[in-house]
Amino acid sequence: MVSASDVEAYLHARIPLSRQMQVRVTVGDGAGVRIAAPLAPNVDHRGTVFGGSASAVAMLAGWAQVHARIAELPFETGLVIRRAGIEYDLPIDGDFEAWCPTPGVAEWTRFDTDLRRGGKGRVELGVELQRAGRTVASFQGVYVALRG
Amino acid sequence: MVSASDVEAYLHARIPLSRQMQVRVTVGDGAGVRIAAPLAPNVDHRGTVFGGSASAVAMLAGWAQVHARIAELPFETGLVIRRAGIEYDLPIDGDFEAWCPTPGVAEWTRFDTDLRRGGKGRVELGVELQRAGRTVASFQGVYVALRG
Repeated sequence: MVSASDVEAYLHARIPLSRQMQVRVTVGDGAGVRIAAPLAPNVDHRGTVFGGSASAVAMLAGWAQVHARIAELPFETGLVIRRAGIEYDLPIDGDFEAWCPTPGVAEWTRFDTDLRRGGKGRVELGVELQRAGRTVASFQGVYVALRG
Repeated sequence: MVSASDVEAYLHARIPLSRQMQVRVTVGDGAGVRIAAPLAPNVDHRGTVFGGSASAVAMLAGWAQVHARIAELPFETGLVIRRAGIEYDLPIDGDFEAWCPTPGVAEWTRFDTDLRRGGKGRVELGVELQRAGRTVASFQGVYVALRG
Protein backbone atom coordinates (compact mmCIF):
# COMPACT_ATOMS: atom_id res chain seq x y z
CA MET A 1 0.00 0.00 0.00
CA VAL A 2 1.15 3.52 -0.81
CA SER A 3 1.94 5.44 2.39
CA ALA A 4 0.98 9.01 3.21
CA SER A 5 4.64 10.05 3.10
CA ASP A 6 5.11 8.39 -0.33
CA VAL A 7 2.16 10.35 -1.70
CA GLU A 8 3.40 13.59 -0.15
CA ALA A 9 6.89 13.09 -1.61
CA TYR A 10 5.36 12.35 -5.03
CA LEU A 11 3.20 15.48 -4.93
CA HIS A 12 6.06 17.70 -3.83
CA ALA A 13 8.34 16.26 -6.53
CA ARG A 14 5.88 16.26 -9.43
CA ILE A 15 3.44 19.09 -8.71
CA PRO A 16 5.60 22.00 -7.52
CA LEU A 17 2.58 24.13 -6.54
CA SER A 18 1.86 21.54 -3.83
CA ARG A 19 5.20 22.50 -2.24
CA GLN A 20 4.36 26.20 -2.51
CA MET A 21 1.03 25.51 -0.80
CA GLN A 22 2.99 23.48 1.81
CA VAL A 23 0.58 20.56 1.67
CA ARG A 24 1.21 17.62 3.96
CA VAL A 25 -0.45 14.25 3.50
CA THR A 26 -1.32 13.31 7.07
CA VAL A 27 -3.42 10.18 6.60
CA GLY A 28 -3.62 7.70 3.78
CA ASP A 29 -5.26 4.54 5.01
CA GLY A 30 -8.28 2.47 4.14
CA ALA A 31 -10.66 5.10 5.52
CA GLY A 32 -9.49 7.96 3.36
CA VAL A 33 -6.89 10.57 2.53
CA ARG A 34 -6.30 13.68 4.62
CA ILE A 35 -4.18 16.59 3.43
CA ALA A 36 -3.31 19.58 5.60
CA ALA A 37 -2.15 23.03 4.50
CA PRO A 38 -1.23 26.15 6.47
CA LEU A 39 -2.86 29.54 6.03
CA ALA A 40 0.27 31.64 5.34
CA PRO A 41 1.25 30.51 1.82
CA ASN A 42 -2.43 30.24 0.87
CA VAL A 43 -3.71 33.52 2.25
CA ASP A 44 -5.90 35.89 0.26
CA HIS A 45 -6.66 39.63 0.37
CA ARG A 46 -9.01 39.11 3.33
CA GLY A 47 -6.55 37.18 5.50
CA THR A 48 -8.44 33.93 4.88
CA VAL A 49 -7.60 30.99 2.61
CA PHE A 50 -7.63 31.83 -1.12
CA GLY A 51 -10.48 29.92 -2.78
CA GLY A 52 -8.08 28.67 -5.45
CA SER A 53 -5.84 27.11 -2.80
CA ALA A 54 -8.76 25.48 -1.00
CA SER A 55 -9.98 23.97 -4.25
CA ALA A 56 -6.48 22.83 -5.28
CA VAL A 57 -5.82 21.13 -1.92
CA ALA A 58 -9.17 19.33 -2.11
CA MET A 59 -8.40 18.29 -5.67
CA LEU A 60 -5.08 16.81 -4.51
CA ALA A 61 -6.83 14.81 -1.78
CA GLY A 62 -9.12 13.21 -4.36
CA TRP A 63 -6.20 12.75 -6.72
CA ALA A 64 -4.15 11.04 -3.98
CA GLN A 65 -7.06 8.72 -3.29
CA VAL A 66 -7.17 7.46 -6.89
CA HIS A 67 -3.37 7.52 -7.21
CA ALA A 68 -3.10 5.13 -4.26
CA ARG A 69 -5.71 2.85 -5.82
CA ILE A 70 -4.12 2.61 -9.25
CA ALA A 71 -0.61 2.22 -7.80
CA GLU A 72 -1.58 -1.31 -6.81
CA LEU A 73 -2.68 -2.34 -10.30
CA PRO A 74 -0.34 -4.52 -12.36
CA PHE A 75 -0.27 -2.10 -15.32
CA GLU A 76 0.59 1.55 -15.98
CA THR A 77 -2.29 3.96 -15.57
CA GLY A 78 -2.54 7.68 -16.22
CA LEU A 79 -4.79 9.85 -14.07
CA VAL A 80 -6.53 13.12 -14.92
CA ILE A 81 -9.31 15.22 -13.49
CA ARG A 82 -12.26 15.77 -15.79
CA ARG A 83 -14.54 18.05 -13.79
CA ALA A 84 -14.64 19.70 -10.38
CA GLY A 85 -16.97 21.81 -8.31
CA ILE A 86 -16.72 23.51 -4.95
CA GLU A 87 -19.08 25.32 -2.57
CA TYR A 88 -17.56 27.70 -0.06
CA ASP A 89 -19.72 27.84 3.07
CA LEU A 90 -17.54 29.69 5.56
CA PRO A 91 -14.36 31.76 5.39
CA ILE A 92 -11.32 29.57 6.19
CA ASP A 93 -9.51 31.71 8.73
CA GLY A 94 -6.51 29.49 9.51
CA ASP A 95 -4.72 26.23 8.74
CA PHE A 96 -7.05 23.78 7.06
CA GLU A 97 -7.49 20.19 5.95
CA ALA A 98 -9.04 18.32 3.06
CA TRP A 99 -10.62 14.98 3.89
CA CYS A 100 -11.48 12.54 1.12
CA PRO A 101 -13.22 9.45 2.46
CA THR A 102 -12.59 6.26 0.48
CA PRO A 103 -15.50 5.36 -1.79
CA GLY A 104 -17.48 2.21 -1.08
CA VAL A 105 -16.42 -1.22 -2.28
CA ALA A 106 -19.04 -1.24 -5.05
CA GLU A 107 -17.75 2.08 -6.44
CA TRP A 108 -14.11 0.93 -6.46
CA THR A 109 -15.01 -2.45 -7.92
CA ARG A 110 -16.83 -0.79 -10.80
CA PHE A 111 -13.85 1.55 -11.32
CA ASP A 112 -11.37 -1.35 -11.35
CA THR A 113 -13.52 -3.42 -13.69
CA ASP A 114 -14.01 -0.56 -16.18
CA LEU A 115 -10.27 0.11 -16.10
CA ARG A 116 -9.26 -3.50 -16.62
CA ARG A 117 -11.84 -4.27 -19.29
CA GLY A 118 -12.31 -1.00 -21.13
CA GLY A 119 -9.02 0.71 -20.32
CA LYS A 120 -10.82 3.61 -18.62
CA GLY A 121 -12.10 3.99 -15.09
CA ARG A 122 -14.02 6.97 -13.78
CA VAL A 123 -14.83 7.85 -10.21
CA GLU A 124 -16.54 10.80 -8.56
CA LEU A 125 -15.11 11.73 -5.17
CA GLY A 126 -16.34 14.11 -2.50
CA VAL A 127 -13.85 16.04 -0.38
CA GLU A 128 -14.66 18.05 2.73
CA LEU A 129 -12.58 21.06 3.61
CA GLN A 130 -12.28 21.49 7.36
CA ARG A 131 -11.04 24.22 9.63
CA ALA A 132 -10.53 23.16 13.27
CA GLY A 133 -12.80 20.15 12.70
CA ARG A 134 -15.65 22.14 11.15
CA THR A 135 -16.68 21.70 7.51
CA VAL A 136 -16.08 24.98 5.69
CA ALA A 137 -16.35 23.94 2.03
CA SER A 138 -17.37 20.93 -0.05
CA PHE A 139 -15.61 19.76 -3.20
CA GLN A 140 -16.56 17.15 -5.80
CA GLY A 141 -14.23 15.91 -8.48
CA VAL A 142 -14.56 13.45 -11.35
CA TYR A 143 -11.28 11.62 -11.92
CA VAL A 144 -10.51 9.48 -14.95
CA ALA A 145 -7.84 6.81 -15.05
CA LEU A 146 -6.58 5.62 -18.43
CA ARG A 147 -4.67 2.43 -18.90
CA GLY A 148 -1.37 2.34 -20.75
CA MET B 1 -10.75 52.66 -14.12
CA VAL B 2 -8.51 50.04 -12.52
CA SER B 3 -5.68 49.12 -14.89
CA ALA B 4 -4.39 45.62 -15.63
CA SER B 5 -1.10 46.44 -13.92
CA ASP B 6 -2.91 47.73 -10.81
CA VAL B 7 -4.86 44.47 -10.55
CA GLU B 8 -1.72 42.41 -11.09
CA ALA B 9 0.16 44.34 -8.39
CA TYR B 10 -2.79 43.89 -6.01
CA LEU B 11 -2.96 40.13 -6.65
CA HIS B 12 0.78 39.66 -6.22
CA ALA B 13 0.76 41.69 -3.00
CA ARG B 14 -2.34 40.22 -1.39
CA ILE B 15 -2.62 36.67 -2.74
CA PRO B 16 0.94 35.27 -2.61
CA LEU B 17 -0.01 32.10 -4.50
CA SER B 18 -0.69 34.32 -7.53
CA ARG B 19 3.02 35.24 -7.49
CA GLN B 20 4.01 31.58 -7.19
CA MET B 21 1.78 30.79 -10.18
CA GLN B 22 3.43 33.77 -11.96
CA VAL B 23 0.12 35.17 -13.15
CA ARG B 24 0.16 38.30 -15.29
CA VAL B 25 -2.92 40.40 -15.91
CA THR B 26 -2.58 41.20 -19.60
CA VAL B 27 -5.88 42.89 -20.38
CA GLY B 28 -8.37 44.65 -18.17
CA ASP B 29 -10.63 46.77 -20.32
CA GLY B 30 -14.33 47.06 -21.02
CA ALA B 31 -14.36 43.79 -22.94
CA GLY B 32 -12.99 41.60 -20.20
CA VAL B 33 -10.07 40.46 -18.09
CA ARG B 34 -7.29 38.25 -19.41
CA ILE B 35 -4.74 36.59 -17.13
CA ALA B 36 -1.75 34.62 -18.40
CA ALA B 37 0.32 32.03 -16.55
CA PRO B 38 3.33 29.97 -17.61
CA LEU B 39 3.49 26.18 -17.53
CA ALA B 40 6.64 25.74 -15.39
CA PRO B 41 5.40 26.80 -11.91
CA ASN B 42 2.01 25.19 -12.61
CA VAL B 43 3.15 21.87 -14.02
CA ASP B 44 1.74 18.54 -12.87
CA HIS B 45 2.96 14.94 -12.86
CA ARG B 46 2.09 14.60 -16.56
CA GLY B 47 3.98 17.68 -17.73
CA THR B 48 0.73 19.56 -18.29
CA VAL B 49 -0.93 22.27 -16.21
CA PHE B 50 -2.09 21.13 -12.77
CA GLY B 51 -5.90 21.27 -12.64
CA GLY B 52 -5.72 23.20 -9.38
CA SER B 53 -3.62 25.92 -11.03
CA ALA B 54 -5.93 26.15 -14.03
CA SER B 55 -8.93 26.55 -11.75
CA ALA B 56 -7.18 29.09 -9.51
CA VAL B 57 -6.08 31.25 -12.46
CA ALA B 58 -9.61 31.21 -13.87
CA MET B 59 -10.97 32.10 -10.43
CA LEU B 60 -8.60 35.09 -10.28
CA ALA B 61 -9.79 36.31 -13.70
CA GLY B 62 -13.39 36.35 -12.48
CA TRP B 63 -12.32 37.88 -9.19
CA ALA B 64 -10.40 40.65 -11.01
CA GLN B 65 -13.49 41.36 -13.10
CA VAL B 66 -15.65 42.02 -10.02
CA HIS B 67 -12.78 43.73 -8.16
CA ALA B 68 -12.47 46.29 -10.99
CA ARG B 69 -16.24 46.87 -10.91
CA ILE B 70 -16.53 47.45 -7.17
CA ALA B 71 -13.36 49.61 -7.08
CA GLU B 72 -15.39 52.34 -8.76
CA LEU B 73 -18.15 52.36 -6.16
CA PRO B 74 -18.22 55.15 -3.57
CA PHE B 75 -18.23 52.75 -0.60
CA GLU B 76 -16.10 49.88 0.75
CA THR B 77 -17.05 46.46 -0.54
CA GLY B 78 -15.76 43.00 0.34
CA LEU B 79 -15.61 40.28 -2.29
CA VAL B 80 -15.76 36.52 -1.87
CA ILE B 81 -16.33 33.50 -4.07
CA ARG B 82 -19.34 31.38 -3.15
CA ARG B 83 -19.20 28.53 -5.65
CA ALA B 84 -17.10 27.41 -8.59
CA GLY B 85 -17.07 24.69 -11.20
CA ILE B 86 -14.69 23.68 -13.94
CA GLU B 87 -14.69 21.25 -16.86
CA TYR B 88 -11.36 20.15 -18.25
CA ASP B 89 -11.69 19.36 -21.95
CA LEU B 90 -8.09 19.04 -23.11
CA PRO B 91 -4.70 18.73 -21.42
CA ILE B 92 -3.04 22.15 -21.13
CA ASP B 93 0.43 21.43 -22.47
CA GLY B 94 2.03 24.86 -22.17
CA ASP B 95 1.58 28.48 -21.10
CA PHE B 96 -2.09 29.32 -20.82
CA GLU B 97 -4.58 32.14 -20.37
CA ALA B 98 -7.87 32.72 -18.59
CA TRP B 99 -10.33 34.99 -20.37
CA CYS B 100 -13.29 36.41 -18.47
CA PRO B 101 -15.57 38.44 -20.75
CA THR B 102 -17.39 41.30 -19.05
CA PRO B 103 -21.02 40.47 -18.29
CA GLY B 104 -23.74 42.36 -20.11
CA VAL B 105 -25.04 45.73 -18.95
CA ALA B 106 -28.24 44.22 -17.51
CA GLU B 107 -26.24 41.78 -15.37
CA TRP B 108 -23.95 44.49 -13.99
CA THR B 109 -26.86 46.88 -13.41
CA ARG B 110 -28.66 44.25 -11.35
CA PHE B 111 -25.46 43.55 -9.40
CA ASP B 112 -24.90 47.27 -8.68
CA THR B 113 -28.52 47.80 -7.66
CA ASP B 114 -28.56 44.81 -5.30
CA LEU B 115 -25.30 45.98 -3.77
CA ARG B 116 -26.43 49.58 -3.28
CA ARG B 117 -29.90 48.76 -2.00
CA GLY B 118 -29.48 45.48 -0.14
CA GLY B 119 -25.77 45.60 0.65
CA LYS B 120 -25.11 42.40 -1.32
CA GLY B 121 -24.49 41.83 -5.00
CA ARG B 122 -24.04 38.48 -6.67
CA VAL B 123 -22.78 37.69 -10.13
CA GLU B 124 -22.03 34.50 -12.00
CA LEU B 125 -19.10 34.71 -14.38
CA GLY B 126 -17.83 32.35 -17.03
CA VAL B 127 -14.11 32.07 -17.72
CA GLU B 128 -12.51 30.27 -20.65
CA LEU B 129 -9.10 28.71 -20.25
CA GLN B 130 -7.13 28.89 -23.47
CA ARG B 131 -3.92 27.35 -24.74
CA ALA B 132 -2.55 28.92 -27.93
CA GLY B 133 -5.97 30.41 -28.67
CA ARG B 134 -7.88 27.16 -28.22
CA THR B 135 -10.40 26.64 -25.40
CA VAL B 136 -9.12 23.84 -23.15
CA ALA B 137 -11.32 24.24 -20.06
CA SER B 138 -14.40 26.17 -18.92
CA PHE B 139 -14.89 27.67 -15.49
CA GLN B 140 -17.93 29.23 -13.81
CA GLY B 141 -17.79 31.12 -10.54
CA VAL B 142 -20.40 32.80 -8.38
CA TYR B 143 -18.94 35.89 -6.70
CA VAL B 144 -20.60 37.80 -3.88
CA ALA B 145 -19.81 41.41 -2.98
CA LEU B 146 -20.78 42.66 0.47
CA ARG B 147 -20.99 46.31 1.32
CA GLY B 148 -19.19 47.72 4.34
